[in-house]
Amino acid sequence: MNKTFLVGLPEASIPTPALVLDAAAFERNLDGMDAFLAGRRVALRPHAKTHKTPMIGHIQMRRGAIGLCCATLGEAEAMIYAGLDHILVTSQVVGEDKVRRAAALARWADLMVAVDSRENLRDLSREAAARGARLGVIVEVDVGMGRCGVRSPEDAIRLARAASELPGLVFRGLMGYEGHAVFIGDRADREDAGRKANAGLVETAEAVRRAGIPVEIVSAAGTGTFDIAGDYSGITELQTGSYIFMDLTYGKLDLPFEYALTALATVISRPGPDTVVLDCGMKSISVEREPPRPLSFPGLEILKLSEEHATGRILPGAAELRPGDRVKLVPSHCCTTVNLYDEIFVVRDGRVEAVWPVEARGAR
Amino acid sequence: MNKTFLVGLPEASIPTPALVLDAAAFERNLDGMDAFLAGRRVALRPHAKTHKTPMIGHIQMRRGAIGLCCATLGEAEAMIYAGLDHILVTSQVVGEDKVRRAAALARWADLMVAVDSRENLRDLSREAAARGARLGVIVEVDVGMGRCGVRSPEDAIRLARAASELPGLVFRGLMGYEGHAVFIGDRADREDAGRKANAGLVETAEAVRRAGIPVEIVSAAGTGTFDIAGDYSGITELQTGSYIFMDLTYGKLDLPFEYALTALATVISRPGPDTVVLDCGMKSISVEREPPRPLSFPGLEILKLSEEHATGRILPGAAELRPGDRVKLVPSHCCTTVNLYDEIFVVRDGRVEAVWPVEARGAR
Repeated sequence: MNKTFLVGLPEASIPTPALVLDAAAFERNLDGMDAFLAGRRVALRPHAKTHKTPMIGHIQMRRGAIGLCCATLGEAEAMIYAGLDHILVTSQVVGEDKVRRAAALARWADLMVAVDSRENLRDLSREAAARGARLGVIVEVDVGMGRCGVRSPEDAIRLARAASELPGLVFRGLMGYEGHAVFIGDRADREDAGRKANAGLVETAEAVRRAGIPVEIVSAAGTGTFDIAGDYSGITELQTGSYIFMDLTYGKLDLPFEYALTALATVISRPGPDTVVLDCGMKSISVEREPPRPLSFPGLEILKLSEEHATGRILPGAAELRPGDRVKLVPSHCCTTVNLYDEIFVVRDGRVEAVWPVEARGAR
Repeated sequence: MNKTFLVGLPEASIPTPALVLDAAAFERNLDGMDAFLAGRRVALRPHAKTHKTPMIGHIQMRRGAIGLCCATLGEAEAMIYAGLDHILVTSQVVGEDKVRRAAALARWADLMVAVDSRENLRDLSREAAARGARLGVIVEVDVGMGRCGVRSPEDAIRLARAASELPGLVFRGLMGYEGHAVFIGDRADREDAGRKANAGLVETAEAVRRAGIPVEIVSAAGTGTFDIAGDYSGITELQTGSYIFMDLTYGKLDLPFEYALTALATVISRPGPDTVVLDCGMKSISVEREPPRPLSFPGLEILKLSEEHATGRILPGAAELRPGDRVKLVPSHCCTTVNLYDEIFVVRDGRVEAVWPVEARGAR
């Protein structure tokens, strides 16, 4: 249901639990990224898996992003159907139905997909060629994360060559996400791990070029490594996603971004002298890393999430919380929190300024 | 989008990741609960938070359930709008907008809400009375879980009396969920903890009756304690939810139910000799307890979930898995897994037999 009828009303009119975006903080985060990019050659292709929200994708494009990353083909469909273009699907698109969908979608937009196997390339080529589509291919390189991606320059060259030669495909370049580096707390250690990963990727790109295959795109980075990869020579674009919202995990690093996204919760019970229960559990905020924390209520500690409850305690000397009071919780992981909601309430100066549909929620 | 166009097609036509219900196993689980209830006086008010799916609620009602539990008011709205009735919202309904919605909804169905504070009772009474509604009240008792609920018989009596006297409200009884007992692995320990919790609840009900207030409903139990509470004298109904689907957590107990719900996943990458990556991450299967396990592929161990990936390893001697192969994963927690999907694909004999909308997904 479209909830824009709440626009202009006070934040207190938002039914809880709800996803709330502080418009000013969000804009400062965008400004922070723009400030980094200004004067540098590296481009930004921000990851839409974080927001799944076409309106935010458009805002990023208007500020100069060269396209978007998507984690699933369904996300790419949602973004393209909302007018966005130049989409890189950062996961392998595998299975008959998915390959068909990717090939068909490539008729309507500049679409690239991550590939790490020859069989997948052949399938994509067959379906794209059958439709007269030209599907972009980015060869994924495992730069140390141990997930998807080829694990040697030779394999990268082999796939790049196949992608260059097979009908219906256009080889565009390489990606290597340093997911094992993005959360390292110590700045020097993070730089080491990030640069090592970037080096592996850039060297693989050089090897592909030496084999006579032009490499246009060399794509890397998460929010924890955006400035490391952004200054690494040979990386052409950043896949950073969470910088727009931030979360407790990235909040531990020394990043020029602030908490913009929270889950707005209501106190529903005060069953004991220091016990507080909020209406915001695992179905409304991420649970996989650590409990959420109140944005601006240091006297409340969240101890435990159940499905629809957050149970916490009021620390000695803290202000009182009564049933009906509202608290903003910062999630430990913004991307999975967004995935639990159908809309983002955008708030400025205490009032709802917009309600953006999380169009790609559940899109696979 | 309604995906019933897949009905009659082979399971292989379901796009992954997807939620798949084995119709036969589901029916055996329903039969298992029916067999327990046969000849006993205790009733079943199964928890709809598990399925969020009106069609499943109707199936439970046709088999003799006396109503449904819901975890949020939004779930109750979805169920009532789909023709279900006799709904108990097992969480406190707090906040001006929620109280208004509950009171209005009570005009259209037999609705009860859990209450644990006098202020909340007064708010509910005011809004219900203003609409000429009669809203049922269940006083929640904390039976040891340490979440919501009154913590003394005196407080229960006080609230029961207020609920009996305030206009617009009907005091119906008590609930006490033994959430701290339902997962205890040792049967004798689980019985001890369950019976202690049930005893506290039943004794509180007796205290309320001694105070001259009739108590119709005494509601308790999760799937791990359904037979303990079901045989505890004075418990009138069971709130059990997960028995229909089961999951890895309840699978560790000695329960007469089997795995009926899985996430269907596709292998998208085989980047290393024993590494397998599936298209089913934290946005498609629960992450809060432990990684999922393949339903019938013992040679695959899931090590790690990221947002859209499950990374696993093939154990020595196991059958090969290639990109495009499909695996059914049993979630560690069925309720939060269902919450990630908009539909359940019901499969019998390898074909899609129905596609049920998870109507209350995201309903708060």
